[in-house]
Amino acid sequence: MHVRLLGVDIGGTKCAAAIGCPDGTIEARSEMPTEPHTGPDAITRRLTLMAKNLAASAPGPIGAVGISCGGPLDTQTGMIHSPPNLPGWEAVPIRSMFEEVFPDVPVAVENDANATALAEWRWGAGVGARNMVYLTQGTGIGGGLILDGRLYRGTNDLAGEVGHQTILPEGPICACGKRGCLEALASGPSIARLARESLHYRRGARLVEIAGGTPADITAKHVIEAAREGDPFSKAILEEAGTYLGIGLANIIQILNPELIVLGTIAVHAGDLILESVRKTVAERAWERAWSVCRIVPAQLGDRAQDLAAIAIALDAIGPAGLS
Amino acid sequence: MHVRLLGVDIGGTKCAAAIGCPDGTIEARSEMPTEPHTGPDAITRRLTLMAKNLAASAPGPIGAVGISCGGPLDTQTGMIHSPPNLPGWEAVPIRSMFEEVFPDVPVAVENDANATALAEWRWGAGVGARNMVYLTQGTGIGGGLILDGRLYRGTNDLAGEVGHQTILPEGPICACGKRGCLEALASGPSIARLARESLHYRRGARLVEIAGGTPADITAKHVIEAAREGDPFSKAILEEAGTYLGIGLANIIQILNPELIVLGTIAVHAGDLILESVRKTVAERAWERAWSVCRIVPAQLGDRAQDLAAIAIALDAIGPAGLS
Repeated sequence: MHVRLLGVDIGGTKCAAAIGCPDGTIEARSEMPTEPHTGPDAITRRLTLMAKNLAASAPGPIGAVGISCGGPLDTQTGMIHSPPNLPGWEAVPIRSMFEEVFPDVPVAVENDANATALAEWRWGAGVGARNMVYLTQGTGIGGGLILDGRLYRGTNDLAGEVGHQTILPEGPICACGKRGCLEALASGPSIARLARESLHYRRGARLVEIAGGTPADITAKHVIEAAREGDPFSKAILEEAGTYLGIGLANIIQILNPELIVLGTIAVHAGDLILESVRKTVAERAWERAWSVCRIVPAQLGDRAQDLAAIAIALDAIGPAGLS
Repeated sequence: MHVRLLGVDIGGTKCAAAIGCPDGTIEARSEMPTEPHTGPDAITRRLTLMAKNLAASAPGPIGAVGISCGGPLDTQTGMIHSPPNLPGWEAVPIRSMFEEVFPDVPVAVENDANATALAEWRWGAGVGARNMVYLTQGTGIGGGLILDGRLYRGTNDLAGEVGHQTILPEGPICACGKRGCLEALASGPSIARLARESLHYRRGARLVEIAGGTPADITAKHVIEAAREGDPFSKAILEEAGTYLGIGLANIIQILNPELIVLGTIAVHAGDLILESVRKTVAERAWERAWSVCRIVPAQLGDRAQDLAAIAIALDAIGPAGLS
């Protein structure tokens, strides 16, 4: 029989529910604005109702529900613990809430980086890999680890926080409060900060024009746009961020010896501008024997990544036995 | 029936064979000097003969053979590929050699850091842990990863090379050729080098007396001895090495979220002098949520570690089914 999977993605801006199949096709989806100020009770009420209605419209029953959300959360208890993008969500029993609506099927919750890692591994850039590290380089730098052909979660669901390894012990303070994290050196906001700070010594760069004339308004997007036009200053900024990312990836290669590293967000949109310096640094910083078996590639799922991430969690909750 | 396991440890100075049981007791052992200049043919001939004689003296048959050796090696093909301590061992088919002598039982080969990780996990400091990182801080810094209750080897047997993550991008050159590796900052020889270099600014320290009056002769052992006597200079050197090790362990905690980190060699002999600064740094550099579930402890197997490492590989080769 054809198994249908319900994926629920909870974000700070919008929430979505999607019905998909084990082959990664999406059959139907619904979306709603999160409106985080309305609080977890109201949001989860609207969200479970939306999911229920979507499931009711499907041509067959749902086999499992997967919920993808920013961490920290607890996959054992199914509780969400105050993700930064959802203020007030303290100990929200999201799994129980969905189990009430879908009492006959497995329901699983997973942090969004792990969920996206699973989705890229099942249907995207990671198909066929036994050992894969997924790393998203956007507002923050998060990650997920597929080791020996399955998701590795760690002791309390915190494995894969590759963005918070120390790259420069005396580097800038990170959003997480620690000093010199990879995220503080190579995330989108960090690239923008690097550009703004470096501008003190380089007035009049093309980058400032692109940002509308005000250095304080520079974002990573502007840096990428200027670099694409050939602006040497912006190219150097991306190269510097790529060097930091390369050190972080080399560390991952030394510790985990993966065959594949899948990079989301910035590498997808600006891989041509950043991957060369990433790979150059990895070649300097990782052992040839380990680097020679590893590829670094951009993520492939694009706009479908978030829906498929949640659906991948539903698929994982069924397990291989449930598909037979 | 009582299963007997044969463990073979191949080192640069000596080789040993030991017969042990699944509960970690050692029943008998033989040892021989390696004499590396005699080359792999002669050494493996003596070694297989010694192992055969030892096995013949056992009161019952051998159920499996485990071989522990310095990497690089290939666990799939069973070949040793020129470990630094065994010059001339290029593509030595060590597994086949032992399969000829023990044709009816499984034979497995593993690098010594992974093997010791398995042994500490089965019989030493790691008993009961689901996610454990073993790290040895001696001449070099190597490691082994037990993740989700089993040894994680990586794509080509290079996982766990935690000593070759970059800690200081502009730090000293490591024995491996890369710059600023953890090993280049916190191994035994690195501690000695740190002390010698720092002495340029501090003549007459107690450490120099302990080393026999010649700064060039200082070893990590001298630094530990002087620190134990209360020498502030030597204590500061160990604290600095502990800080670097702490950064490396914090990175491991962020990436792998283990519940246990087992430290061999220096932490066993001088844990009182180094672990405080290690833990202080980890508390600063790792997330509270991940650090709160992780313990850092010295290894427990002591002198038996190398024999039990090889025996653990034999046990792993049998698998749970073979023990019933």
